[in-house]
Amino acid sequence: MELRGTMGINGRGHLEIGGCDVVDLAARFGTPLYVFDEELIRGQCRAYQKAFARHYPHSRTIYAGKAFLTLAMCRLIAQEGLCLDVVSGGELYTALAADFPRERIYFHGNNKSREELVMALQAGIGCIVVDNSFELEILDRLCEKLGRQVDILLRVTPGVEAHTHTYIQTGQLDSKFGFPLAQGIAREAVRTALEARNLNLRGLHCHIGSQIFELESFGVTIGILYHFLKEIRDELGWTAAELNLGGGLGIKYSRDDSPISPEEYIAYLVESVRENAAMCRLDLPLISVEPGRSIVGEAGTTLYRVGAVKELPGIRKYITVDGGMGDNPRVALYQAVYEAMVANKADKQKTQLVSVAGKCCESGDMLIWDLEAPEVAPGDILAVFCTGAYTYSMASNYNRLPRPAVVFVSQGSADLVVRRETYATLIANDVIPFRLESLEARSVEQA
Amino acid sequence: MELRGTMGINGRGHLEIGGCDVVDLAARFGTPLYVFDEELIRGQCRAYQKAFARHYPHSRTIYAGKAFLTLAMCRLIAQEGLCLDVVSGGELYTALAADFPRERIYFHGNNKSREELVMALQAGIGCIVVDNSFELEILDRLCEKLGRQVDILLRVTPGVEAHTHTYIQTGQLDSKFGFPLAQGIAREAVRTALEARNLNLRGLHCHIGSQIFELESFGVTIGILYHFLKEIRDELGWTAAELNLGGGLGIKYSRDDSPISPEEYIAYLVESVRENAAMCRLDLPLISVEPGRSIVGEAGTTLYRVGAVKELPGIRKYITVDGGMGDNPRVALYQAVYEAMVANKADKQKTQLVSVAGKCCESGDMLIWDLEAPEVAPGDILAVFCTGAYTYSMASNYNRLPRPAVVFVSQGSADLVVRRETYATLIANDVIPFRLESLEARSVEQA
Repeated sequence: MELRGTMGINGRGHLEIGGCDVVDLAARFGTPLYVFDEELIRGQCRAYQKAFARHYPHSRTIYAGKAFLTLAMCRLIAQEGLCLDVVSGGELYTALAADFPRERIYFHGNNKSREELVMALQAGIGCIVVDNSFELEILDRLCEKLGRQVDILLRVTPGVEAHTHTYIQTGQLDSKFGFPLAQGIAREAVRTALEARNLNLRGLHCHIGSQIFELESFGVTIGILYHFLKEIRDELGWTAAELNLGGGLGIKYSRDDSPISPEEYIAYLVESVRENAAMCRLDLPLISVEPGRSIVGEAGTTLYRVGAVKELPGIRKYITVDGGMGDNPRVALYQAVYEAMVANKADKQKTQLVSVAGKCCESGDMLIWDLEAPEVAPGDILAVFCTGAYTYSMASNYNRLPRPAVVFVSQGSADLVVRRETYATLIANDVIPFRLESLEARSVEQA
Repeated sequence: MELRGTMGINGRGHLEIGGCDVVDLAARFGTPLYVFDEELIRGQCRAYQKAFARHYPHSRTIYAGKAFLTLAMCRLIAQEGLCLDVVSGGELYTALAADFPRERIYFHGNNKSREELVMALQAGIGCIVVDNSFELEILDRLCEKLGRQVDILLRVTPGVEAHTHTYIQTGQLDSKFGFPLAQGIAREAVRTALEARNLNLRGLHCHIGSQIFELESFGVTIGILYHFLKEIRDELGWTAAELNLGGGLGIKYSRDDSPISPEEYIAYLVESVRENAAMCRLDLPLISVEPGRSIVGEAGTTLYRVGAVKELPGIRKYITVDGGMGDNPRVALYQAVYEAMVANKADKQKTQLVSVAGKCCESGDMLIWDLEAPEVAPGDILAVFCTGAYTYSMASNYNRLPRPAVVFVSQGSADLVVRRETYATLIANDVIPFRLESLEARSVEQA
């Protein structure tokens, strides 16, 4: 079991994070609870920034907000000097409500609505990453109508699909995202963008996958992009001022994962861009990357309280917790594997295997199979690691469970950044139409 | 393409449901929009009730609220005279807020908290379905403390696991739910429940799966239950007054599904119970069932507005819509297959195959692969069928998309039952701690 960031075991034999005893956090804020190690988040932001500063200062680190976004997170990202990638009106709204510097916002998405594009234009955000021809067309028209100009990148699909440890290269990538480089589609898009009266085509964007543990697929992608950029320069005389290479760096969910550090990753990207640019005799662009999971993933820990413990002799020992697929759908969605620790028995010998069942009334709601643990009893606090990315952001009210609170911990202090939902929240938008109102009265009398 | 319930194609060539033109609904309530055919829901409730009335009046139909629960839905279920199965404090809160008759509420779950049990006891609900020994113990203690008695069922796992068209029978079912009949565990639970001072053991509950298309697994299960009941009667002198056979009846998501009608299902269950009870010389119990999906699944239709249409020549044509895995995670979670129709072109010839991409920034957010459709253009309304169960109830704010509104339609009128979330909802619980407040100010000035 690897302790991450500021984690440690204190004198009471309890797990602590950011100098806070998590057993105290559970008592103070309730469970389930998302706990974020603020120093670890800041450390990851700085690891990207430092790597770029060392290897290639003409660069931007853009936090991918879809991994985890709240007002407080926007502030933290702003403080660290990163840019922000938003993918919807809701994420943009959150960034604006947090006064995130607008010029540092990138707007992504394969189906931005007119309303969302207008919101982005009126806010004066830094850059729109255009996904498709329809968007190119309406964006130019909306700019015209609003009397605005906007910087754009074109999202292209290079035909490289990165998986955890391998990649697939195909000339015809079947994707809902972007303009394929194949069949002249991306070239046509560049031409259209250059002709558009209100769009300033600043460069290209691509994204080849998630939770990636090998670098070669990035190198192959950069090679393909430069092949395209050279053609375009020769044909249309346009060169990209920005090359956004997306995100996708893997994190260490479990002992089986061997992540690449931001330093290695950035050094590799930079070298690959330098080589290709030199070979193609193209000016060096601004390089941007969009880490989400690798900024925030390992910084998150979910605390649960153990309820029933169920021993099926010779089969399995189940421990049940007070959350599950509602607050972390990644196990059910992606068969994600998590490590965990009984946080109030962090110094105890692990003597058994248990499986951690969620609270949802669905047999698929299992959080962990075969966790090594000490004796577990009702009331114990289970800490599940690496839950910072795509858990709160994907959380639902399935089974009408209120979504948990979120706290940031740092140097011994714990601050609430998202309040726990209440039962009242669950019905706040409910309406009972008149015909169901009156008929019910009769029905109750009969009952 | 099968039209369900009150669906029809009107003179404008539009899909209508409950006498309402869905294109008008999309304009009036916005998209995405969940539309529920109230008559179809009531029809399904009545199909169960009628089948029981014909074959076995000593029965209860219990709606499984986890499929879809709002205040209005509670009222409708109450009006139809059904009981209600809740699985959490949040579902119970919703039922109580809707004044659902308390004596008709069953409380399920594999990890009910003390707070939830107290809430249920204080509300005086009809029955608690006890899942495990820990719950049995604390429930009896809580009753003692509150001076209450409560009716319970014990959830047992019979070692039968039903799948869509088959079942697996095993003596040692590895499940997070219930007391296994194997190894004397369930027998011990019955003994404990009978000795408990404040618990009235009314019977047994079991649930063997979801989206089931064959009856035999239910028959096998009933046989196993009766084998156990006979042993228990002989040993402890106890007979079950209620046998709750769970839910699980499949619905017709697509043309490949051949669901069993409530009539066939109930007739089969009743015959099987009668046979087994006679064979074991046991009195006939109250039979209860817990349909969720089969009450509400086919009654729901999700309306989306089409945005970008992206043709990748020789590969695929994507149409993108303004919702996706946020409002319907079932495709990503269970590889669910849905049918759909371009609702404003319902009378047009289908000339092509398109694939429907969701709005989320994730390549896994695809709603339908290879849908037969007429020419599709931005602004068209896509109606995805059979989305009544486990869509709204599992919906998230992933990518910070506000959750859609829900309307009930009936006889030409459409009533809002859940208001659409706003952007403001998304940050309603957000808090910015002081240190992020003040530092941000500095950071913005630097920017």
